[in-house]
Amino acid sequence: MYAYLDNSATTRTDKRVVEIMDKVFLEDFGNPSSLHKVGFEAEQYVNNALDYFSKLLKCSRRNISFTSGGTESNNTAIIGTALFKESRGRHIICSSIEHPSVSEPFKFLKNRKWDVEILQVDENGLVDPEALKSMLRPDTVLVSVMHVNNETGAVEPVEALGQIIKENAPECFFHVDDVQGFGKYRLDPNKSGIDFLSASAHKIHGPKGTGLLYVSDRASHIPPLISGGGQQNGFRSGTINVPGIAGFGLAAEIMYEGLDENAERLRQLKADFISGLSDIPDLRVNGPDNASPYILSLTVKDVRSEVLLHALEGREVYISAGSACASTKTGGKWRPSPTLSGMGMPKEEQESTVRLSFSRFTGKEELEQALNALKTEIPRLRRFKRR
Amino acid sequence: MYAYLDNSATTRTDKRVVEIMDKVFLEDFGNPSSLHKVGFEAEQYVNNALDYFSKLLKCSRRNISFTSGGTESNNTAIIGTALFKESRGRHIICSSIEHPSVSEPFKFLKNRKWDVEILQVDENGLVDPEALKSMLRPDTVLVSVMHVNNETGAVEPVEALGQIIKENAPECFFHVDDVQGFGKYRLDPNKSGIDFLSASAHKIHGPKGTGLLYVSDRASHIPPLISGGGQQNGFRSGTINVPGIAGFGLAAEIMYEGLDENAERLRQLKADFISGLSDIPDLRVNGPDNASPYILSLTVKDVRSEVLLHALEGREVYISAGSACASTKTGGKWRPSPTLSGMGMPKEEQESTVRLSFSRFTGKEELEQALNALKTEIPRLRRFKRR
Repeated sequence: MYAYLDNSATTRTDKRVVEIMDKVFLEDFGNPSSLHKVGFEAEQYVNNALDYFSKLLKCSRRNISFTSGGTESNNTAIIGTALFKESRGRHIICSSIEHPSVSEPFKFLKNRKWDVEILQVDENGLVDPEALKSMLRPDTVLVSVMHVNNETGAVEPVEALGQIIKENAPECFFHVDDVQGFGKYRLDPNKSGIDFLSASAHKIHGPKGTGLLYVSDRASHIPPLISGGGQQNGFRSGTINVPGIAGFGLAAEIMYEGLDENAERLRQLKADFISGLSDIPDLRVNGPDNASPYILSLTVKDVRSEVLLHALEGREVYISAGSACASTKTGGKWRPSPTLSGMGMPKEEQESTVRLSFSRFTGKEELEQALNALKTEIPRLRRFKRR
Repeated sequence: MYAYLDNSATTRTDKRVVEIMDKVFLEDFGNPSSLHKVGFEAEQYVNNALDYFSKLLKCSRRNISFTSGGTESNNTAIIGTALFKESRGRHIICSSIEHPSVSEPFKFLKNRKWDVEILQVDENGLVDPEALKSMLRPDTVLVSVMHVNNETGAVEPVEALGQIIKENAPECFFHVDDVQGFGKYRLDPNKSGIDFLSASAHKIHGPKGTGLLYVSDRASHIPPLISGGGQQNGFRSGTINVPGIAGFGLAAEIMYEGLDENAERLRQLKADFISGLSDIPDLRVNGPDNASPYILSLTVKDVRSEVLLHALEGREVYISAGSACASTKTGGKWRPSPTLSGMGMPKEEQESTVRLSFSRFTGKEELEQALNALKTEIPRLRRFKRR
């Protein structure tokens, strides 16, 4: 048995999701834009998904667009807002712990003379709504703060932030990257003053290559990032990814049906796991008390994260040295984590920080296997290091 | 039995393609950016696809990026070039018969003060390399001409165009939308002076939601359309769509293995079909003699294309009234076809034009069924109309 504890990077696709996608690939393979029955039958899957997601997010079908994933959703919201609002104001704000798919478009805009301001977090990685309040200006056109942090599981107060924006900068758009929260938390974007909400299928046992972007009515006039045949009301062109969308819809449905049960089960498993870790000295759990039950960030003194990762790999326990999205693999060299840096963590501690991330599929046995591996490997690696 | 003759809109996914994707979804589901074995195993599928495509296109692996499809590939090449070249020149050229995923980004740039020039086609829908030559200027930074037209199958002289650009505007980038040609024709982008080549998986029995963009070395510094975690050398961020890429690689391999045989078989089937149509008066085949064996455009006098489409649908023959990508379904109202307009076809003839498009899966029986349906329905609809 192996313990896959890197579910914030990606998850195993649910069998039922694969089944519905296979049916689309092989039988109902039409292009929804086609005017005949084969196109119409394919379109039904998209309509079903739209029905589900709009009910879930308490909005109209027109408020949902499907994309190729969370990264495209985030880029679309940010670049689209910039293009739409450029004559009205060029002050934009994001937190210091955003995923690169948010912080990189912000950097792009900064290089093009946008006034980018960074909302700092406290030592637990949480933003302060009052700090946002003092930053808002009449020319602030966009605020972007994630819901659940991908490295620590910190749950940001997005509802309170939405309220602050509504009251103090009512014209400003509010974007929430919900890639790590979607399927694990309930969020009502309209009620929370959210104009854009990004989600991804493959983080919740759906397929890679599919995501969605909720867009409020007032933000629906932003120009598309990807233009062409005018699909999805012109908001996102390109042949509609019917199998991906059908799979995403079902994956979300399964997650939300079991939401409270999954959360409670994982909360308990995570608490037991953390208790078990108390035997290991010089080990710290990072992040706030409200952290998601799906994510656990650990700083293990005197053990480099990549060394620990590979030692655990030898015991078939698969974890992450920070966020896989940082793609250190390609670049080769170590880069500081935006989240851990934002929390004020020194470089040497960041280099000793690992992430374990869980899913609906994670069971007690896997966590026992991981705990045993950590209890064996950490002392062994420390002996090696301290020798 | 039904006759699906709308393969230029989309194709049925090959069973072998579905099998490899299912294996990825359920077993090798990792994130290639992860540093452990599960990530590594997923990465192998991507490497295998990169190996195949780079061999096929006679280039390095670094020249291939995977995208969410042809539309994203086209947008990336055009917007990226504009951002990269804006200080060097703002004159850009595309043909009058481009797909909306090319013409819409051009319109976007035109609205932002780019100098957009349109290369017209002749009555058969072909561009003239000499006409391009006379348009090229020292500040021309991009030319975009498709390989195979999606409405008529016209094969554009992209090799000759590439040569003209090389000789007369060596700094200018050349983009070829190869969505309808890829898997059906061989093209050597480097030899042909092509800087960007766009392809799509779902047009060749691969999955929807996956495409690629070939990028020449000299064009590789254009900024990404979608930025974030830095995947794919920073050219296209977002978790890599491993199942889609694995499926696309296999789909392409199958197409190229059978390329000549498929082309010959379909050329014969199409010729027989056109012969069979000679019994029907006032019917015209559109496009040049070199048209792709995969596409057939017909103008049927006195029969509206949507009426014919639905009459054939009643006989389980599925065709297109022009291009599905025009998405008239969503908009509701009729829009002129860029290709047919470009060829100088009057509105009333365009409204009587249908497209039949074939694939590797199209057999003799389907074409016989379609021929019989046309022979029955066209006279019937004309009696109705002329009454």
